[in-house]
This record gives sequence, structure tokens and C-alpha cells, in this order.
Amino acid sequence: MALLLGAARRHYSLFNRRCRRGTVGTSDSGTRYSFAAAPNRRNRHERLCRKTYCSDRRPYDRAASPRPLRCQETHRQFLLLADAQALTDNAHDPEKVRRNVLEVASDYLAVGIDPEKTTICVQSALPALAELTMLYLNFVTVARLERNPTIKDEIRARGFGRDIPAGFLCYPVAQAADITAFKATVVPVGEDQAPLIEQTNEIVRRINNQIGRKVLVEAEAMIPRVGRLPGIDGKAKMSKSQGNVILLSASSDEIRQAVLQMYTDPNHLRASDPGTVEGNVAFTYLDAFDEDRAAVTELKARYRRGGLGDMAVKRRLEAILKDLLAPIRERRAFFARNPEDLLDILREGSRTARAVTEATLKEVRAALGLFQLE
Amino acid sequence: MALLLGAARRHYSLFNRRCRRGTVGTSDSGTRYSFAAAPNRRNRHERLCRKTYCSDRRPYDRAASPRPLRCQETHRQFLLLADAQALTDNAHDPEKVRRNVLEVASDYLAVGIDPEKTTICVQSALPALAELTMLYLNFVTVARLERNPTIKDEIRARGFGRDIPAGFLCYPVAQAADITAFKATVVPVGEDQAPLIEQTNEIVRRINNQIGRKVLVEAEAMIPRVGRLPGIDGKAKMSKSQGNVILLSASSDEIRQAVLQMYTDPNHLRASDPGTVEGNVAFTYLDAFDEDRAAVTELKARYRRGGLGDMAVKRRLEAILKDLLAPIRERRAFFARNPEDLLDILREGSRTARAVTEATLKEVRAALGLFQLE
Repeated sequence: MALLLGAARRHYSLFNRRCRRGTVGTSDSGTRYSFAAAPNRRNRHERLCRKTYCSDRRPYDRAASPRPLRCQETHRQFLLLADAQALTDNAHDPEKVRRNVLEVASDYLAVGIDPEKTTICVQSALPALAELTMLYLNFVTVARLERNPTIKDEIRARGFGRDIPAGFLCYPVAQAADITAFKATVVPVGEDQAPLIEQTNEIVRRINNQIGRKVLVEAEAMIPRVGRLPGIDGKAKMSKSQGNVILLSASSDEIRQAVLQMYTDPNHLRASDPGTVEGNVAFTYLDAFDEDRAAVTELKARYRRGGLGDMAVKRRLEAILKDLLAPIRERRAFFARNPEDLLDILREGSRTARAVTEATLKEVRAALGLFQLE
Repeated sequence: MALLLGAARRHYSLFNRRCRRGTVGTSDSGTRYSFAAAPNRRNRHERLCRKTYCSDRRPYDRAASPRPLRCQETHRQFLLLADAQALTDNAHDPEKVRRNVLEVASDYLAVGIDPEKTTICVQSALPALAELTMLYLNFVTVARLERNPTIKDEIRARGFGRDIPAGFLCYPVAQAADITAFKATVVPVGEDQAPLIEQTNEIVRRINNQIGRKVLVEAEAMIPRVGRLPGIDGKAKMSKSQGNVILLSASSDEIRQAVLQMYTDPNHLRASDPGTVEGNVAFTYLDAFDEDRAAVTELKARYRRGGLGDMAVKRRLEAILKDLLAPIRERRAFFARNPEDLLDILREGSRTARAVTEATLKEVRAALGLFQLE
């Protein structure tokens, strides 16, 4: 499972800049990352917790993240690979989740997430998250969890009925633990996930209230203002299972095939016919990725009045996507050849994250007056 | 909160033997415990997990444990002070739970639990238990938890209705984590808690099934064959809130007061009247604690035919209880004066328990094929 092309959309310019600076190794020359700057960037005091599910049932969660590259410049960014949470609806197939952890991590590194700026960590390597979840579960009623609109929708979508796994019902609480453990003030989520942030803040208020001071921090949802890229078939959502995606790992051939299959204007049969630009996926993608705005405007005008064939549009798009994806693919390939480098990044990030999350756990436990052995 | 007298009942003879051997310090002479023998007793391969709640809303859980002293001779015994679980219905009052951890620990040490034979550990100091709980929650449905008879009864008893804390609904899963983390084969529980062991074994089977071999171990409930001691007012259950208990920490005066208030035969007004022995709490306690069986039989006969006053019976009982409780009280007092000794025992036991529980977590995660960073 790989990141979808959508994830690269608004990274585009930043990404290219990073590419040229070459902060992520693209060769076999044995480049190692230095983490010296990572643990503390005092000028970036706003903390951002970006979660990514390691289950291919929710690829959109990753594809929908709009600004990880920009945010690592402006925030103290934690990127949490939520493998434990992915099990809440994949307990029967943990192997899939296991594979995805490294895939997802290398996707993010490939698009330009810099482990010197972003702490990349693995949820299951942070026991404090499970401990905080267990604690928070005592501050939320079952009725409240069942009222959560996101959970209600997802239960319906997955057809769980009454046989919903208990872990799935409780996952908004685990989410609250993830967010609060990092003391995140900003959490990038899709619009449909805003109720999960509300649930987190409820728990924060309840616990702070009991303590009598603000030990935990309320978080704000960062909801992308622009919609997602459509699938290549024109459907609103890209989905690997529907085969309407371009993966970040796509080869030149796969890019060509995807662009060839791309939904355009079904009534635009001959190059000389006038065509429609609205809902034409090839143009939507050009809008997203072609930096030469004037050229795109000109192409649209020609397409509308007739005289521009689909193939000409698609060839231009294909070239742009190839330029965009080639270095990403190269960097993915680097980590595929050097999995120990990837693991080192995750180990180092998780070590940093462990210190942060355990400090929060300890602070909350002490403030609540719980028993502490050490 | 202290252990109730009932806990001492069937420990009686063992307890006295231990007292004479003096393995638990009763003086201020600075005796320290040696733990050398604790971590591994290879001849005791049956593992027993004894949980004790650190909430005074369930004092009976501790009082009902019948055989901790005997079991530490025959089993690899873990005594888990379940402070995290006590929060599932005490989140509003964590201070009470915190205090109880040390109280309960010193109660057990006072009646003769030997940290060289029993691993005494604190639930909240064992992160692997929270991690296993989070994992197991994915293998149990909400509907299954709601069907659990113990949970149903307790929800009714506590008047939770729909506002049941999520942690409370999930506690049978946390219980499964506790039991399986120690690979316990035997779990002492009250009769009403047998469904919790069934729930544990269901999870064990489901996970072993998915793995394809027996990584987790099924446990057997050890249900006391003899009922509990009644309260001093003749009610079936001793309860601190009802004031019908004799605490293990009771002073001589408190013992005298409790025995004086003890329910006997309300129709036995004069010593010369014939009296009833059945349901007469003074005699029930003599049955439990007086080792001179012949004397008790003789007393019962005299009481029945008339000519034996309640006071004579009670004076005998008072003397016996004082003899029983004096050394227990002394040892409790020792730990009250030396809390660091007590904490050292809990730290050492928790260290041992951490190794055991983390090994299980690691084994389960590997067997399920989950992602592992190290």
C-alpha cells in the first residue's frame, strides 16, 4: 500500500525545492540521517500530531493529508504511524498492517518528510499511548462513544452492526490519547473526522476539570480547505480497491496507463469537437500539478472551442506526473533497498516520541493523584 | 481500607506457622527482604494470578481470597494490585485508590504473604497489561461484553444505566490481559466472577486460533468451596460501608466492640434460656477460628439447652480474635512505620512482573505477525 498521488498535490513546490536540496537520500551512497535538530525546535512551539493509519481500508486518510511538508517548517510535527489503531478493524489480518508500516513511512519520506524536522514514530512502540487510553476510557461513557457521528457512520459503512469490535468503539479514546500525549494543539484531519477532535477536547476538559488546572491541552482540527483529487475515473474518491488511483510508487508505465484511462469528456469524440473542461479529470490534474498556469488556461480555451485532442492534453499531463513522481519513486526505491535506514529513522523517532508521551503520562498520573511506584 | 477478617479465616493455621517462623518482619530491627528466590521457582510451574482491587467499593474481592498463603507454597503466585482497574468505577476519586494500594499490600504482607514466594506487583506499573488490553479489545465485540453476566449485574448494582464508563464495560478484557500476561493457569475468583474467566478463555482461544498454535494459556477459576464469613450483624456480606466488619487492622478495643455488637440469638434474653446456634454469628466465628473443636461442640450444646450466656461465648471469641489479629496488626504497623520497605517490595515485585508480562506481549505480537520495531 502506498500513498496516493493526491498526497503530493499541495506539496508540489515545496517538494521540488526539497528535492533539489537533497535532504532525503536518493542514492546508495550510504547517507545516514542526523537527528540532532529533531527533539527540540524551540521556535516551533505549536505542536502538530499527524496520524496516519496503516490499513489499506483507509487510504484516504493518508492521501488527504495536505500539508505535512509545509507544517514541518512551521510546527513541531509528530507523524504517528497508527499501526495499533489499524488493528481495530483489521485484527483478522495483522500481516497487512505490518507491511504497511514501512510502506507508509517510506511514502512520507519519499515526498519529502524530513526526520530532522518531523518526529516519525510508531504507535505500537509507545506504551504510554495504551496506558493513557485505558485511563481516559474511565472518563467517557459508552453512550457518548455510540453517539459519535464518525463512529456511527463507520459502523454503518463497515456493516459491523452489533458485532462491532470493542476496540473499534473505543478508538476515539485511543485517538484522544495519541493527540494529548504529544500535547498537540493542531491535528490535520478530514472534515468527517472533526467529531473525533471534539471527543478529544471533551476528555481534556473533563480531566483538567478534575485536576483543577490545565494539564492537558485542547487541540484544533486542521481541515484542508481544498477538496481531494478525484479518482482517474472521475469518481470523487480515489480508492486502491477501485483501481482508480495513481500511487506515489507508480512506474512510468503505470503513469502512462493511468493517464490513458483517465476520464475526460465522453462527448468529445474527435479532436475538432468542442469539449468540456469541468469534471474532466485530465484538466483537474493539470490544475493541480501544472505550474504553467497560462499554458493551462490556453489549453482549456482550445479544448472548449474544439481543435485539441484528448491525447495532447494527456501527453502533457503524463510528462508532468513523470517529472513529479520520478524522484519520489527513486527515494522510495532507496528505502526499499535500505530497510535498516528506514528502521533507524523509525527507532530514533519513536525514542523521541516515547520520552514525550511518557512525560505526559507521568504528569497526568501525578496531577490526578494516582499511585506512582517510582 | 484494610483486609477484612474473613481473609484470615482459612489462613489461620498456616498463618500461625508463618508467624512463628517470622518470615515477615515484626520489629523495627530493619529487617530487609531478600528476593533471590522469587523470580523463578521451577518446581512450582502452575502459575496463579491473584488480583485484588484497590477500591473500597469491592472489599469482598480481597476478603474472599481464601488461600493466598497456601497457594504461594504450591504455585508460582502473582499478586496483582489492580489500581488501574479500580479506576473503572472510581475515576472521580483516584485519591482513594492511591491510598488503598499501600493499605492492601501491607494487609497481604501482614497475613503472611511472603514476597520471596509471591510476586506482589502493581497493575499501573505494568504497561504491557494496557497494551495487551488494547490488542484484545479488537478480538471481542461490544455485544459480547454487554452479555457478560458479571458486568450486567454490576452495571445494575452501580446504577450506571447507559452512562456506564467505557472503561467499566471493557474491564473483562483488561482482566483477560492481566491473567494471560502472567500465563496464569489458575485464578482465584468469587463464584459470581466465573464468567470473567470464561471471557478470558474465549479471547485466548480466538487469538491462539488465529495464530495457529497455543501461545496463550487458558485459565481455570479457583472458586472457594466454603462461603464467606457473615458480617457481625448477621448479614451475608461484610461491608465496610455497613460497618459490619472486623478489619485486619482492628485494635483490641475495636475487636471488643465488634464482638460485643455481634448478632447472636435475639430470643436468648437470659443466660438460663435455651438458645439457637444456627445463624448465631458468635458461633459462626468460633467455628471458623477456634481450633479447639471439642470445646466449641461442648459450648454449642450448653448454649442450646440453656445455661450459657452470650457474654461467655463472646469473651472466648474475643480472646481468640485478639490472638489471631495481634501479630497481623503488629506487622501492619511495621510497614506503616517503614513505607520504604513496603515500596521496595512493590518495586521489586513489579520489576519481576514487568519482565514476565513484557515477554508475553512480545511473544503474542510476534506470533500474530504485528509490526515490531526492536
